[in-house]
Amino acid sequence: MFKQLPSLQMLIRQLQRLPYLASKNIYRVAIHFLKSDEKQIDQLCQAIDSARKNVKKCSVCCNWTEDSGVCSICSSSKRDQTLICVVESWYDLFAIERAGGYTGVYHVLGGVLSPMDGVGVEDLSIESLLKRLDGEVVEVIFATNPTPEGEATASFISSKLDRSKIKISRLASGIPIGSSLEYMDRVTVYKALSGRRPF
Amino acid sequence: MFKQLPSLQMLIRQLQRLPYLASKNIYRVAIHFLKSDEKQIDQLCQAIDSARKNVKKCSVCCNWTEDSGVCSICSSSKRDQTLICVVESWYDLFAIERAGGYTGVYHVLGGVLSPMDGVGVEDLSIESLLKRLDGEVVEVIFATNPTPEGEATASFISSKLDRSKIKISRLASGIPIGSSLEYMDRVTVYKALSGRRPF
Repeated sequence: MFKQLPSLQMLIRQLQRLPYLASKNIYRVAIHFLKSDEKQIDQLCQAIDSARKNVKKCSVCCNWTEDSGVCSICSSSKRDQTLICVVESWYDLFAIERAGGYTGVYHVLGGVLSPMDGVGVEDLSIESLLKRLDGEVVEVIFATNPTPEGEATASFISSKLDRSKIKISRLASGIPIGSSLEYMDRVTVYKALSGRRPF
Repeated sequence: MFKQLPSLQMLIRQLQRLPYLASKNIYRVAIHFLKSDEKQIDQLCQAIDSARKNVKKCSVCCNWTEDSGVCSICSSSKRDQTLICVVESWYDLFAIERAGGYTGVYHVLGGVLSPMDGVGVEDLSIESLLKRLDGEVVEVIFATNPTPEGEATASFISSKLDRSKIKISRLASGIPIGSSLEYMDRVTVYKALSGRRPF
């Protein structure tokens, strides 16, 4: 079937490399491109190219930035530079920023420790975090995900810190707002119960 | 958050135009592009461009083709040119080709009649199908989907045909292979029962 459509086949192969595009939808996206006008395609390709050239990692916290060197959060005078929130990825940083109310700065690890997947200490930005913590930092919030790897990463990093100088905290685990106890797994219910707060 | 990342914001806006990419995954695809090397991006853009330039509609059946004018199915001497299978889209043609065993040719309508969505007779390739049926065609198989619009489109086209000259058939409706009667909707069960075949 595709022998007679080499260009379409090549496009489909390229689209297969993209993550998060269901294999059933690859054909539909390919046909969408066939039908779109040249301007749209040019805009997409230019946007990819320009993002690749302009977006870099912040030299302090490893957040994405388009400014030279330091990101807007690290360079902001409105943010509390003595409070660092440690997150796994930019998506998590984005989720916290979207939630609002956080006034400190971040440190993006770029993943979690996972020996099974070959991710070790040197693959994450742990070294640069420890260097930052030598300074005036008062509190570190571990906002890694409550998965085994996320917990292990938070434990590993906190074991390297001097608790007499730095306050260490962890995001609360519990029942998400709007959901029902009935449908929660037992570990979450246990955590919510053991982490109960005065009302 | 995105004010400081204009290039990334532009890339995300471009990706939002793509169909079949879940909004939750757009950020992930954008970050994938930031991390990919230039060669990969170039290959993708070239593939889109080359597919857009080379892939055209067959002048006979409206299938996609990269040959000049007529597609490989219409120009094949191995295919029975007197048997036409009418499908809604290229995806449906592809599904039938993948199933194997069909030796006739196709006609791709490019959609179905749907007054609610403003799709009328002139928006589909019905005119060119009726012209083809003037010739030596012996049988027309309507393989439009068993939806109200698909059925209506098949009925409309068949009403224009001379049943004394052309045999008209419709794809069988019934229980899909491997599934269970228990979970079928009642219309499908009714259709399977009324369309029962000698065993």
